[in-house]
Amino acid sequence: MIGKLNHVAIAVPDLVAAADQYRGLGASVSAPQDLAEHGVTVVFVELPNTKIELLHPFGETSPITSFLDKNPSGGIHHLCFEVDDIKAASARIVETGARILGDGQPKIGAHGKPVIFVHPKDFQGTLIEFEQA
Amino acid sequence: MIGKLNHVAIAVPDLVAAADQYRGLGASVSAPQDLAEHGVTVVFVELPNTKIELLHPFGETSPITSFLDKNPSGGIHHLCFEVDDIKAASARIVETGARILGDGQPKIGAHGKPVIFVHPKDFQGTLIEFEQA
Repeated sequence: MIGKLNHVAIAVPDLVAAADQYRGLGASVSAPQDLAEHGVTVVFVELPNTKIELLHPFGETSPITSFLDKNPSGGIHHLCFEVDDIKAASARIVETGARILGDGQPKIGAHGKPVIFVHPKDFQGTLIEFEQA
Repeated sequence: MIGKLNHVAIAVPDLVAAADQYRGLGASVSAPQDLAEHGVTVVFVELPNTKIELLHPFGETSPITSFLDKNPSGGIHHLCFEVDDIKAASARIVETGARILGDGQPKIGAHGKPVIFVHPKDFQGTLIEFEQA
């Protein structure tokens, strides 16, 4: 069921500096994109086998503001795994004893695809997004 | 210069439970391997495009004991990127303003290959390993 690692999301205090650092290491780095409805500005770092998504708060009520308050240098915010079928995946995740955040139903994520997030305390302290690929 | 994401290392308080959870999601999961000289027991979770390495302390002086003390549910410990040439990579990393941990020289890592680690404060709050592939 669990598929590719779609991306590693890293919250950063300075998006330009972070993008420059990855660019300085030879990575292909996108221009910043504001995702207003998700409350983040994102820069995509393309690696040969996956992506790093650098996240910075956008707007007054960004979901990553409190994360950066706690981690002022930045830090890994979540991992995103691909699945074929988000409903089937949700059922298996719940069978492993993990809680799905929110009302448990898939939402449309930042890539326009159905996603769920799993409670970090139920998944080795790691916030995990599952995205229907 | 920066190549594939070789692995995401996640420190876990209960290696059996963590391995079972990934296995329950259909991942191919290795048997635990004690890496005595690195102070960890590791389980490899194979994904189609990269690996998750689940780490648990081995021995009295494990480098991840204090991390688990601070993060009792577990958490992402580091990311590992592949590079072709560790010495050339080290020079470029230092040019981006980041400090290499220890004496700055590559060491032989857990996979038997030359590695360096970069100071998290100089890299978006994220501990990064670079491994000569």
